[in-house]
Amino acid sequence: MQPLSIGPQQKSGSTIAIMMNEPASPTEAAIAATPEHRLKDELDIVIPTIRNLDFLELWRPFFQPYHLIIVQDGDPSRTIKVPNGFDYELYNRNDINRILGPRASCISFKDSACRCFGYMVSRKKYIFTIDDDCFVAKDPTGKAINALEQHIKNLLSPSAPFFFNTLYDPFADGADFVRGYPFSLREGVPTAVSHGLWLNIPDYDAPTQLVKPLERNTRYVDAVLSIPKGTLFPMCGMNLAFDRHLIGPAMYFGLMGEGQPIGRYDDMWAGWCIKVICDHLGLGVKTGLPYIYHSKASNPFVNLRKEYKGIYWQEEIIPFFQQIVLPKDCTTVQKCYVHLAKQVKEKLARIDPYFDKLAEAMVTWIQAWDELNPSAAALSNGKKG
Amino acid sequence: MQPLSIGPQQKSGSTIAIMMNEPASPTEAAIAATPEHRLKDELDIVIPTIRNLDFLELWRPFFQPYHLIIVQDGDPSRTIKVPNGFDYELYNRNDINRILGPRASCISFKDSACRCFGYMVSRKKYIFTIDDDCFVAKDPTGKAINALEQHIKNLLSPSAPFFFNTLYDPFADGADFVRGYPFSLREGVPTAVSHGLWLNIPDYDAPTQLVKPLERNTRYVDAVLSIPKGTLFPMCGMNLAFDRHLIGPAMYFGLMGEGQPIGRYDDMWAGWCIKVICDHLGLGVKTGLPYIYHSKASNPFVNLRKEYKGIYWQEEIIPFFQQIVLPKDCTTVQKCYVHLAKQVKEKLARIDPYFDKLAEAMVTWIQAWDELNPSAAALSNGKKG
Repeated sequence: MQPLSIGPQQKSGSTIAIMMNEPASPTEAAIAATPEHRLKDELDIVIPTIRNLDFLELWRPFFQPYHLIIVQDGDPSRTIKVPNGFDYELYNRNDINRILGPRASCISFKDSACRCFGYMVSRKKYIFTIDDDCFVAKDPTGKAINALEQHIKNLLSPSAPFFFNTLYDPFADGADFVRGYPFSLREGVPTAVSHGLWLNIPDYDAPTQLVKPLERNTRYVDAVLSIPKGTLFPMCGMNLAFDRHLIGPAMYFGLMGEGQPIGRYDDMWAGWCIKVICDHLGLGVKTGLPYIYHSKASNPFVNLRKEYKGIYWQEEIIPFFQQIVLPKDCTTVQKCYVHLAKQVKEKLARIDPYFDKLAEAMVTWIQAWDELNPSAAALSNGKKG
Repeated sequence: MQPLSIGPQQKSGSTIAIMMNEPASPTEAAIAATPEHRLKDELDIVIPTIRNLDFLELWRPFFQPYHLIIVQDGDPSRTIKVPNGFDYELYNRNDINRILGPRASCISFKDSACRCFGYMVSRKKYIFTIDDDCFVAKDPTGKAINALEQHIKNLLSPSAPFFFNTLYDPFADGADFVRGYPFSLREGVPTAVSHGLWLNIPDYDAPTQLVKPLERNTRYVDAVLSIPKGTLFPMCGMNLAFDRHLIGPAMYFGLMGEGQPIGRYDDMWAGWCIKVICDHLGLGVKTGLPYIYHSKASNPFVNLRKEYKGIYWQEEIIPFFQQIVLPKDCTTVQKCYVHLAKQVKEKLARIDPYFDKLAEAMVTWIQAWDELNPSAAALSNGKKG
């Protein structure tokens, strides 16, 4: 039964929609690549996978100068092939267990949530994470999109979460703050997270996949937005970049996959956590550009099994995150996160014992993070009191 | 001195940018016009003006079936020519004084803020208001944009202000709510306001106009967004539609122009007021599509004179609106608005005596609105207690 095996569908007759319904070829990507590779010594690309990374061929012109951290999920005895010429380190489950010891319990198994292990072992300031079924998309002029370059732009320019700018990103070329935007807020705040989008297969939940099996995203929205303070959003981990130094310890993708009652909520969980912490610490979260081309819809029946508990749990979890107020003495991401873990235990454990386990894993994650990132931990503790 | 008399500038070499740097001709608009004119008996188009309405020729295929309410500003003895074939009523200052008597004091003179008189005398459910220097824009395929049709789409589909949808308007063709969007929030709330944008001359304040005299907006962002609950935005009155029955009494454009210390804050004032009231009453505000082509930058030196007090006053006014909490017994727009007026008197009058006057004018406006809209007023009062 493969109800989603139908090829890309053209929802619109326009040339633009047709162009965007195909990924860029390696040649097109090579043509579009700029010689400049910003932050190449300050950014790691984290890829969770269970298969050979042939998809990297498509990204070669954009990714090759960067260091890759590959987190191999599932059977550790399997060999993952990485195309020649890429600089990478690869961790399988045996490596994770060896490095973290008993704390490895906080890293999910048989679920792409394991990617967050890569965030923890990185030594760089910035992370870009991408799924291995994501190809290079094209913009409406047919040009291959350098997703990483746009994420870097997003991260290096401020966010404006306190007031809405109707012309979208005021820091984009040819744009600015509009009339009526308070001047005192135009400096903005540092951007911690850049959330990119997907052409072709949209990131729908299982019920929507089942109801709209043929829907494809052909709408290229040429905008980057700061998500306003106090507003939560569904963060997808497929095409995501962030500043590890600003928000890294909160980018925990939770307990999913083998032995857990839910899946496909790993990135959502991280999204709720990072947003309330960014709001509290005065950091920005952006969404919009860049697009990647998402090639393959996952099986909606499998997804439904993974999701169904999350679908009703989130009706309580989201109000929990909407109402949470972090105390003033939570001045670092770690402190915020440990406080969140406590609140999860207190307020969500009555939904299901899973949240008790999750709250404990959140604390374990911070301990492991601090152990692997001792200077950041010292900084965090130094700010105590 | 005409520093802004330079023609449209091309900020980008792409074909799209070039296409969008020219308005559509009447012929192009005629070709794009659909035979259907939705809500033609339920919507009035309100236009404030001081000159002959030749610009309507450009809009004929889109506007002709609708009724126009023209609010003539300035010298009432002047004759405003309206192109043949349009169905309209026209009010000049003498008419306003005659109809409102002493309450006419709440309607601005020598300022486009006078347009709100048109909202008050309308007998329709919906209003679209547009400036007379706004022409028909083209979309990236070169097609003339029927701005009114898009506003109607925006108003007739729900808003989703409680959680951010990363694929923008979930009610647009080919879009939906993404994974992780709570199902309980997908019904949305009624949309009260649709805020459209501008290609070519962006709506900048005087300082930005002075600093970037040549900046033109060529970025067509194919999106409509619900502005999240709790977030304020700079509402521009140039290209705006709303549901009079849902929010009409709050669409007061304040005291601007002759005899007042500020100008160019009429729409901003209305935007702050409607947003806090919509948030309180559970109504939606959208921004994004449709675009109009804004033809002419106003004089930044004149603008600076009108704006400069607003520029520093807004640094206090915006926090005032961000913090305001409307009491539960404010169950109608009128009650919310009168409560706001009281708060303005209490909290803003210390900035300048102008706010005392404005607070009184807000109350006068509601009295005038209720007098001219007796059934709505009865409904509002009937809900009392």
